[in-house]
Parts: sequence; structure tokens; C-alpha cells
Amino acid sequence: MSTATLLISCPDQQGLVAKIANFIYANGGNIIHADQHTDLSAGLFLNRVEWELDGFNLPKDVIAPAFEAIAKPLDAQWSLSFSDQLPRLAIWVTKQDHCLLDLLWRQQAKELPAKIPLIMSNHQKLAAIAQQFNIDFHHIPITKETKIAQETKQLELLKQYDIDLVILAKYMQVLSPDFLSKFPKVINIHHSFLPAFAGAKPYHRAYDRGVKIIGATAHYVTQDLDEGPIIEQDVSRVSHRDNVQDLIRKGKDLERIVLSRAVRLHLQNRVLVYGNRTVVFA
Amino acid sequence: MSTATLLISCPDQQGLVAKIANFIYANGGNIIHADQHTDLSAGLFLNRVEWELDGFNLPKDVIAPAFEAIAKPLDAQWSLSFSDQLPRLAIWVTKQDHCLLDLLWRQQAKELPAKIPLIMSNHQKLAAIAQQFNIDFHHIPITKETKIAQETKQLELLKQYDIDLVILAKYMQVLSPDFLSKFPKVINIHHSFLPAFAGAKPYHRAYDRGVKIIGATAHYVTQDLDEGPIIEQDVSRVSHRDNVQDLIRKGKDLERIVLSRAVRLHLQNRVLVYGNRTVVFA
Amino acid sequence: MSTATLLISCPDQQGLVAKIANFIYANGGNIIHADQHTDLSAGLFLNRVEWELDGFNLPKDVIAPAFEAIAKPLDAQWSLSFSDQLPRLAIWVTKQDHCLLDLLWRQQAKELPAKIPLIMSNHQKLAAIAQQFNIDFHHIPITKETKIAQETKQLELLKQYDIDLVILAKYMQVLSPDFLSKFPKVINIHHSFLPAFAGAKPYHRAYDRGVKIIGATAHYVTQDLDEGPIIEQDVSRVSHRDNVQDLIRKGKDLERIVLSRAVRLHLQNRVLVYGNRTVVFA
Amino acid sequence: MSTATLLISCPDQQGLVAKIANFIYANGGNIIHADQHTDLSAGLFLNRVEWELDGFNLPKDVIAPAFEAIAKPLDAQWSLSFSDQLPRLAIWVTKQDHCLLDLLWRQQAKELPAKIPLIMSNHQKLAAIAQQFNIDFHHIPITKETKIAQETKQLELLKQYDIDLVILAKYMQVLSPDFLSKFPKVINIHHSFLPAFAGAKPYHRAYDRGVKIIGATAHYVTQDLDEGPIIEQDVSRVSHRDNVQDLIRKGKDLERIVLSRAVRLHLQNRVLVYGNRTVVFA
Repeated sequence: MSTATLLISCPDQQGLVAKIANFIYANGGNIIHADQHTDLSAGLFLNRVEWELDGFNLPKDVIAPAFEAIAKPLDAQWSLSFSDQLPRLAIWVTKQDHCLLDLLWRQQAKELPAKIPLIMSNHQKLAAIAQQFNIDFHHIPITKETKIAQETKQLELLKQYDIDLVILAKYMQVLSPDFLSKFPKVINIHHSFLPAFAGAKPYHRAYDRGVKIIGATAHYVTQDLDEGPIIEQDVSRVSHRDNVQDLIRKGKDLERIVLSRAVRLHLQNRVLVYGNRTVVFA
Repeated sequence: MSTATLLISCPDQQGLVAKIANFIYANGGNIIHADQHTDLSAGLFLNRVEWELDGFNLPKDVIAPAFEAIAKPLDAQWSLSFSDQLPRLAIWVTKQDHCLLDLLWRQQAKELPAKIPLIMSNHQKLAAIAQQFNIDFHHIPITKETKIAQETKQLELLKQYDIDLVILAKYMQVLSPDFLSKFPKVINIHHSFLPAFAGAKPYHRAYDRGVKIIGATAHYVTQDLDEGPIIEQDVSRVSHRDNVQDLIRKGKDLERIVLSRAVRLHLQNRVLVYGNRTVVFA
Repeated sequence: MSTATLLISCPDQQGLVAKIANFIYANGGNIIHADQHTDLSAGLFLNRVEWELDGFNLPKDVIAPAFEAIAKPLDAQWSLSFSDQLPRLAIWVTKQDHCLLDLLWRQQAKELPAKIPLIMSNHQKLAAIAQQFNIDFHHIPITKETKIAQETKQLELLKQYDIDLVILAKYMQVLSPDFLSKFPKVINIHHSFLPAFAGAKPYHRAYDRGVKIIGATAHYVTQDLDEGPIIEQDVSRVSHRDNVQDLIRKGKDLERIVLSRAVRLHLQNRVLVYGNRTVVFA
Repeated sequence: MSTATLLISCPDQQGLVAKIANFIYANGGNIIHADQHTDLSAGLFLNRVEWELDGFNLPKDVIAPAFEAIAKPLDAQWSLSFSDQLPRLAIWVTKQDHCLLDLLWRQQAKELPAKIPLIMSNHQKLAAIAQQFNIDFHHIPITKETKIAQETKQLELLKQYDIDLVILAKYMQVLSPDFLSKFPKVINIHHSFLPAFAGAKPYHRAYDRGVKIIGATAHYVTQDLDEGPIIEQDVSRVSHRDNVQDLIRKGKDLERIVLSRAVRLHLQNRVLVYGNRTVVFA
């Protein structure tokens, strides 16, 4: 069953649910999922609607222009996706393989509706995994001096492979504001602690602090490092029996699960960003 | 802000979201929450819509008859609630006070939008708590011989106090099918285990089995004991360090939290029952 | 069954478990719980031993001096507690009652092995609760000008009531370093977030950030505000459907549960502090 | 750092901790982990002690006979393990790869202190994974008629490969009592529900029942199917939005994590079985 999914946000006003539902109904569509949220403090209407393409009267390439006639007067931001057009992902890694392997396994197990034609890394270490999964691997080493030039190369590769979404699966480099302005669709995974530990060696500092819980956060990347809109988070209990290596091991388990969940939510078009926050229609 | 909330389920067909949204929009209503679910295997459409009464053109007592004109051709089951009409609860207890106190405290803290005019018990033990919260307490002892007569008395009290919902907050008596046919809106809290333990002394048996997790389940009461539609569940970790008394203590914490969450979800009209299951629009 | 519990930490060396176990065995004691942890990076041995007093040859008042002969050469820090000597708690509050009520309920339900003879507050609001539980209530308002004088009064009350442990159950005042140097046994409850939000209105900022998880942390109070050794933490899931009030409500549930767990662990002598961290022999 | 670990259980009596600690101390051992539990209702003492072999005076092959002199009068059951002698695992699978891959990844990532020389399956499907990880794969199809003969073959392979532990990583066959009497060290992973669903298609039945939580249980295999001593359990939240396929997907995530945790706990000699339950010295 192929479906179309509309994600839309606009200033709240009366009749928005009706307008969108009528558009789909008038064209013969059957809605199988509709979820709406109103952020009363922001005065914002946010909506996700998914309907069957089978029996829908509008051809796929006409839906967007037809809907624009409705959306424009509402001052809406919206996007339209089709379940039979699989997004193309690039996974970026450095040396750690746990998130990469988890994503690749889930894509093979059909848990992630996407194609993964490209793995990029600033190291050679994980090339064998790419080969094993028959995915092109590009080694793009980064130094302070080469960063600007290499980002240009990275952008070319993203274009060449027609990539829709970059996943930083433990990619230990910061993307420049210039890169992000040219390719803004990037998801990152980041360890998180209660309380937070800025700076280097966070697991060592969490251990020294004797925390009882560690966490991980998957978020869209913005120019404020690790401060982009949060898609998904989770935590694990730890105790004094866990040494720094145990915290790192448990952290890796969290990272791979939280990142995979976030990527899946994104690929199912369940995440709507507004301000620096998200609505997740899960 | 007063709101109206519509819960509706009907056989799935095209245009349902539009029909409902149009009804509200055409009468000047502003939807603040709309959530829809389609159970594809059951061919069922399930929907919750909440809109502001302020500015709505229909008087409250006209909304239901007006909507019935739409609902009837759809073969729909639906209910309409108003946030400014607080449901009236009766809490039934035996000897344990943890769930009762939790509900009373939350009602006072304005977490539960309801009135609680009546506490009923087959024991005297918790009368003092009722007095302390200024709630009428009725002691209705039950024996095998008196059960039928006492249930009649209970039904009369529910009528006299104009009760909308009964909460079994550790009420250690089974309600008869006859009682339930006359008053079907009852929520119960029940311990749950992985694996399950039927019969007496479940915490002792869970201990003997060395379970690592214990749980609690809040559900609507049906004639199949402890088998009604589930509203909410949660679990706690336990270990070999927990003896039977610890399991019971942790179980009580689960019970009061799970029951309070379930009651709150019900009072917010977020729970829609179909078959032996629920949709919880949380 | 009365028991004695020894909590001890000292520089690691061979034979420590044997030395302690021999002391108890030689005097006819039956160990019912023994848990040991070695922090290899700190070179520290930490131990909790609990044994039955019934049949133990040493009178209670002789145990400590007798054990000191063993502990001194080890350069050990240690404390000895008896389960039949209930610690005396003072609960300090401001206006919020959720943590206070939870502690009082649990003490009544015999979940907290302690006496609670004193409630102190910088406001009058919760006096009625103290009265209802037959606990002395002292209103000690604090202003910038009166703080030093009032802390003297607070210390006098703690002495007068023979208090062993102060629990800050949403007490919205900072204790001075001077106070803490005179009465260091204080447990506090604090909201926690991933990421952390310093400063005012943390729930509003957590909402703006769209966090998916909120937490609470119970810790011993030190002069670094909210930075003392952590005893217990827990988290709750939140979503875009939760507004600021919902976050606060869920935060209150977390606070009362995490604080009660921490107090119980402390009262069972399961928490050993070293550096700025704890070992919790749970 | 090589260590020795002793797991011991015996009828409770005074002086047990001292006896064991003295044995290690007298021979120059440094204890790095000691955890003891007394099951008061069973009158049973259970203990785990781990100490450094470096500097220990007894050669490895002499420790067991030397300790037997202490253990015998105590009527103790005990086992001794050395961290530098890696146990040898056989993983048994049918068609599903999620648990197998998780175990193999973790073994490669050095999270599981073990060798994995053998994968056995009643199907051919996962042979490629074995090849990819350079592990011998044996295809042992099972029918009702061939089961006894094939179990003999399986036992021979376990002997040939010198296997210490069998892990049923979604092996969809029941082991016979005869097999288990000859090779009793088997860990299995099993889905679990609140309430439980016996019989076929449990995920479908959990969906029909509208459960809000699903779980998984790792346990030692006994002749009572799925009723052996529990090592580890965990759960995931589900909602009405999750269809049967989603439940299965979330169940797979639970299974791989719970099984891997259980295997790790076993390999670290942290699990002590008594009666039909375990103590997990985690």
C-alpha cells in the first residue's frame, strides 16, 4: 500500500483540520493516520496526515501544486512525501562501528524505509563494513587546514549520490555553518547526562560524579553544536559497580538504539520541527 | 477555557475526518486537539477531537442532537463531554489506603478533573481518611449471603450520589455480572507479572520464581475478571535483594501511579474502548 | 529482628573482608548482608555489613569501641547503626506539599524506618498537614537580612529535637556554608534535565527545548549548590503533548518518588559517600 | 589483570564470610569484588568473591582442591572460574538473525568474554553470517522422527568443540529432557507479556488484548519449557499505534538486548541458581 504523507505547520486559525481533510476527501483519498497538535503558547497548528494513494484522483506530481493553493493563504510550511519513494541516506562515521552496524542491520531487516548508497568517514577503519554491505565508502580525512576544501568535496558527493539525509553515526567532526546552510538535513547522536558535562571525557566526569543514570540524545544538527531540535532520547541506569568502561559500553547501546529510533521516525515523516523543538507524531 | 471533547468510532470510510472537522468548523469551533487512529485489521476509524466552546455557535445541549445527524449514517458509537462538567467519582476500597490517598491528593492538587463525593468500603478501616477529606463514607460489608442485597444497596448509592465512574482502588471483592450490566463504568487496578501468576499470593509466587520485573495494570472491569480493556501499565525492576515485603511495597507504588494515570486519562476523555482493547489518545 | 550495620571505607589492602568478617564471627554474630566494592581507580575499599544482634556477644555500646581497634590501623572511616534505634528526621518545606506528604505516608506505612518529630518551613502554608500528622511545625521565615539569625534558630531546633537528618522536601532556600559545617546531614531533591538548564524556570526552558525526558535527582547537600553526592535519580518520558504544566506535574511525581527512595536508602544505611560520589549498596 | 571468581551457596551459618575471606587472604589474594546474599526464608547463604590471581600463592590447579576442604563440611555447592580462561559458546539459531548478530558484534567488541567457535541451526538460512564471522556452521535439521538421533549429533558437536554454554538465540525447537540431562548449561530468550499469552502467535494475541507493555525474558533452560530460572528481563512501551509488525519489531529489540545482557552476566560468573530462581550479583 503506497501512501502520501503531509507534514504542515501554520499559524492557528479555525477550520484548518477541515480544510486539509476536505482536500484529501474531495480527491478520493482515504486517510489512515491523522494527528494534530496545537501549540497554544506559540499559536501554531501542526499536523501530520497520511492517506492511501491507491484510489486517489490526483497524480503524484500534481498533489503538491494543488495543495499549495490551499497552503499559501494559510502562510503554512509544509512537506509532502511518498512511501514508495525511498529517501537516500549517507552515513558518516569515524572509528566506532556500533551505530553504523545497527543502522545497516535495520535497513536490511526492512525497519528503515530508505536506501543507503553512501558511507563517508574521516578514517579508513570502517571501510570493510561498507564493503561487506556493498555500499560505497569514501574516505575524506579532515584537518584544520583541509576542512573547507573537504567539505566542498563532501557536498559534491552528497549531490552525486542524490542524498536526502546525512546521519552522523559517531562522526567526530563538527560541520561548519557553511556546510549546514548548503545541506541542512543532518541527524546526530550525542551522549547526555544528568547533570550535563560539557567538554572532554564526559564519561569519565560522569563516573567521577557518581551519576545513577546516563542518556543519549538524537537531534537535528544546527549551528549550535549539540543544541539542535531533539528527536529522541533515552536513558540507562548505572551504579557504582559500573566503571568508566561500563558507562561507555552502556552509552554505546543507548546511542545505537536512540539514533535508530530517531532515523526511523524521520523516515516515516513523523517529525515536525518548529523553533528549536520538534513535534514527534509517534 | 471550556472545551468539548468528542470520542467516536465507526467503520472506516473516506471523508470521516473531513465530516467531523466540518461540523465543528461550520459552527465556529476552534479545534485544539485532534487525533485519529485507523485499526486497519478491524476496519475501524477512531477519533478524538477537542475544541473550544468559547465562540462555538451551538449551545451545549444542542451539540449532541446536531452531531447525531452526522453520526447515525456512519453507524458510529460516540460520546460527548464538556470540560466544565466535572464527572463524579466513587472510590471503592477495602483496607489498603495507598491508591485511595494518591487519588485524593491528586484531586486536591487539581490533577484529576473530577468530584469525589463518595467512598465505599466493605471494611471500616479507611473511614477516617474519608472524614479527613470531607467525603461521605459508606460501609457496605459483603458476605457470600449478603452480596446480592448489598450490590443493590451499592447501586442505589451510586444513583443517589449521581456517580459517573467507580474506581476500585484495591477493593478486594468481585463485582457480579448483574452489577456490571447496570453500572458498567468501572476502573480497576491489578498487579501484573512476567510471567503471570494466577491464584493466591502472587507476590510470594513471583518471589519464588525470581522475577526481575513486576508490574501493574489498570483496566476497565468486565465480567472476565482482570481481563477487561487495558488503560495503562507500568513496571518496576526488582532483584534478589527484594524479599516478598519489598515486592509488595514496590507493587503498591506501581499500583497507585498506574491507577492514577489511568483515571486521569479516562477523565480527560482520552480512552476509547473497542473490542477488548483501548485506544489511548495520550 | 534487630541488626547492626557497619559502613566502612578505607585504603584498599589485602585481608579487609576477612578482618571485618572475623570481628563479627568471633563475637558470635550472624551476617545477613555483606556487600563490598573496590574502587580500583581510587584504591579504595568500601563495605557494608549487616548482622543480627540477637546472639551477638558484645553489648551495643561496646561494639563501636571494640571495632575502633580494628579500624584505626586501617585508616578507615566508618559508622555503625542499629535497626532498633530509629533516626529522627526533620522535613523542611516551603509551599509545595507533594514530597512532604509522600514522606509522611511512607513513614506511617512503615516504609521509612525513622521518627519524624519536626517539620520546618519558611512559610505557613503547610502547617495544617503537620497538625494532621501530629508533628510539631515551626515557621521560620527567611529574608536576606534575617538569614544568619534564623539559621541559628534552625540549628537550635535541630538540637532540641535531636535530629539526625534534614530532608529538604522542596525547601526553596539555600543553606549557608556555615549551617552545613554545623549540620552536614542534609538530603535534597532537585529536578534534572537532559540537557541541563541552569537558572530560573527550568521547566519552561525544558519545554522550549522540546526535551523528551525529564528527571529528578536526590543528593546530599554540599556547599556547591545542587552538586553534592547523588543518591538516586529517575526520569519520565514527555512529549510535545505535555505543556509546561504537564512537565511540572510529571516532575512532581518524579521528585516525590526519587526523594523517598533516597531517604529510604539512607535510613537503611545503604549509602556510603566518598569524594563527591556515592556507593549505594542496594 | 587475571582474576579468580568463586560462586558458592550453602546452608546459612555463622562465619561463612569469614571462612571464605580467610581462605583468600591466607593465600595472599586481594579481593576486588565480594557480594553476599542470604535468603532468610530458604536459610541459604549465597556468595560471589572475585580476587586477583597476581600475587596469589596457590597455583590455579590447586585452588579448587584446596577450597574443597573448606566447602565440604559446609555442604556447599560452588564453582570456580578464571578470567583468563574464556568459556566456549555455541549459538543455536533457526531463521532470525537479530540475537545472533548482536551476540557476535558484542563478542567482537570485547563485551562478551568468550570464544564462539560454533553456530548450529536447524535451517541453512544464517550460514552466511557464520562464514562472515569465520565461525563453523553446522546444519542439523530436526523432524519429529529424527530428533533423538539429531540430538545425539548435537551433543557430539558440543563435545567436539569443547562447548561450555549453549545459547538459544531464537532456536525454535524444544530440547528434550534427555539432552538437558546430558548438557544442562543452556540459556534461552523468550518473549514475555503482561498478562501472559500461552500458545501460538503471542504477538497477535498481545495486540488483540491491547497491551501497553511488552517484555522479554532470558532464562536457563529446564525441562519445564520457558519456566527455568530467570536471569534478566526488560520491557518496552507500546501503544495502539503499534500494529502486530511493530510489536514484533520492538520485541526483537528487547530480545537481543535482554539475551546479550544475560549472557554477559553469566560469562562474568555473576549468576547463581538455586531452586528455580537466581541471584544476580550485578
